Amino acid sequence: MTTTPASARTGLQARLAARPHGLPAPGDLEIVEVAVPDPTPGQVLVRNLFLSLDPGMLLLMAEGSRLPLPRYEIGAPMHGDAVGEVLLSAHPSLCPGDLVVHRLGWREYAVSDAGAFRRVDRDAYPSPSLHLGFGLVAYVGLMEVARLRPGDTVFVSSAAGAIGSLAGQIARLTGARRVVGSAGSAAKVAHVTGRLGFDAAFDHHDGPVLDRLREAAPDGIDVYFDNVGGEQLRAAVEVMNEHGRIALCGALQHQSTGRPDPGPGDPVRIIAKRLTLRGFTVREHLDKAAEFGQRFRGWLRDGSIVYDETVVDGLVNAPAALTDLVRGRYTGKTVVRLGVGDGRDADR
Amino acid sequence: MTTTPASARTGLQARLAARPHGLPAPGDLEIVEVAVPDPTPGQVLVRNLFLSLDPGMLLLMAEGSRLPLPRYEIGAPMHGDAVGEVLLSAHPSLCPGDLVVHRLGWREYAVSDAGAFRRVDRDAYPSPSLHLGFGLVAYVGLMEVARLRPGDTVFVSSAAGAIGSLAGQIARLTGARRVVGSAGSAAKVAHVTGRLGFDAAFDHHDGPVLDRLREAAPDGIDVYFDNVGGEQLRAAVEVMNEHGRIALCGALQHQSTGRPDPGPGDPVRIIAKRLTLRGFTVREHLDKAAEFGQRFRGWLRDGSIVYDETVVDGLVNAPAALTDLVRGRYTGKTVVRLGVGDGRDADR
Repeated sequence: MTTTPASARTGLQARLAARPHGLPAPGDLEIVEVAVPDPTPGQVLVRNLFLSLDPGMLLLMAEGSRLPLPRYEIGAPMHGDAVGEVLLSAHPSLCPGDLVVHRLGWREYAVSDAGAFRRVDRDAYPSPSLHLGFGLVAYVGLMEVARLRPGDTVFVSSAAGAIGSLAGQIARLTGARRVVGSAGSAAKVAHVTGRLGFDAAFDHHDGPVLDRLREAAPDGIDVYFDNVGGEQLRAAVEVMNEHGRIALCGALQHQSTGRPDPGPGDPVRIIAKRLTLRGFTVREHLDKAAEFGQRFRGWLRDGSIVYDETVVDGLVNAPAALTDLVRGRYTGKTVVRLGVGDGRDADR
Repeated sequence: MTTTPASARTGLQARLAARPHGLPAPGDLEIVEVAVPDPTPGQVLVRNLFLSLDPGMLLLMAEGSRLPLPRYEIGAPMHGDAVGEVLLSAHPSLCPGDLVVHRLGWREYAVSDAGAFRRVDRDAYPSPSLHLGFGLVAYVGLMEVARLRPGDTVFVSSAAGAIGSLAGQIARLTGARRVVGSAGSAAKVAHVTGRLGFDAAFDHHDGPVLDRLREAAPDGIDVYFDNVGGEQLRAAVEVMNEHGRIALCGALQHQSTGRPDPGPGDPVRIIAKRLTLRGFTVREHLDKAAEFGQRFRGWLRDGSIVYDETVVDGLVNAPAALTDLVRGRYTGKTVVRLGVGDGRDADR
């Protein structure tokens, strides 16, 4: 097809205005309205539907990011996972109406070479936002990284969060004997043991984590799915059974403070119990996406898994929502629905 | 055979007299001469030839040992790996003259049920002391725990020590592209790069370990065989390449001080580089003993590996030798030759 002139199209995008120290202050991120260019040959114009919010985005704003992703540059639009719909295509691999996932989030419209976008099944999930979910992270963290075995006791930190809520449920569905979780408030604890079906949970503010974890897992833990680092990681090392395995997925606890995490502590304990600690990201495990997708859609269909999602409306509300996310105000996966809720009319 | 009366036989044994704080002080270990009983039916009497000295013995003396071994009890003889010769047997599985390895070290004579002793090949090595060597630890740490791959750059700490001296050489013999080591003196560094054939080495007292390690391994390291923990472990995490693997074998650095080791540090680095840290002991990997033994004897025969050993004479000299070992006075494997060097006549 040929491109349709649409030079009058504008859209919002978020840019890094200043590098924050810790949590972003008002003004560190700016929302600007920009002209949206037509796609040139080989390019595609996508209208974004949902932007994924992820605590790791804070690290990408910071001066010395240690994540294996390009950091955010001042004055440039930020990147992030998004799902959108092809509006105009100048490449034969994608057609208008296709649903695509990509990394050009934090903007209402994305224009790039077709290779930047990956088509996904429109009918896979009840909402396109589920394509941004962290189920695959939870799945490979348990199955490939921590080598979950039937009968294991599994501990999941940040158990009400985007990854933890799925990790605990998937552990149960794939053979764990007991699943325990930690979360940041009494309400979240109730949510984790109630709606999400964990066997036990505790508020990590509630006294020494080590004591709470011992109560929740009196026979010790075999697998720890770590989303937070810090005191909970050290407590898990103490409570681990011999040959325990720790999947290091995130380090939320110290991320918001900017201070380095002291880490898992004395290696003598790790040696004495023959523990394995392994850091991972989902990108080394994309070969498991098809296997996971099939199982996950089955669990959703038969109601054996709860997909917990917080939806924030409008890109203008995304910066504050990211801060709220890091502060622990939400449960489940947090996404921003774009083109609504900001008093503007998006082109749709 | 029937047992021969030998009730007049006596021998030395070492006992823990007081729990040391840090390094043992004179008097914390006492050497006593005891009567050696005849074996009762089912038992065997062994004259020990060599006792293995191991820095982990310090941990077994301490109040709160975290090793998965029984700690030493006050007033009781200490245990430790030893190799000896059967003198009297009251069990059909062992005959006088058999060479055996066992855990009843720190004594000139060991009497126990035959199951406590494992017969080994008298002709396997030029000296029986080689049966106490840590080659299997080094081998499984590299091959099974760190999953050494051809072309890897390998860093070995305590590279002049009993395990490190073999780990570096075995890494080279099994496909490492570059082998670098650290040691505790200029003389040891020269020994490591000279006699042991490492590509580079540095003295860990010589300025920041991180700088020295970066110079020795400008392209980063893929495998770290950790014998020390502490600053060297943290530096290795910094210098590791993506998907690097750390075999946690020992934590010498903080062992002598009694203070806990702060550990490998911020998990964000471990996640970002997708590192694996795994604590191990040789006991989970004994299924590799035959494979290793065959390869090791081949390397010894054709001169492609140097077996470095320090021999101390006499049990009376063993306590001071253990302190000297922890202080880094020796290279290679340290053993005590029993029944000699103490002015006494051992029954032989």
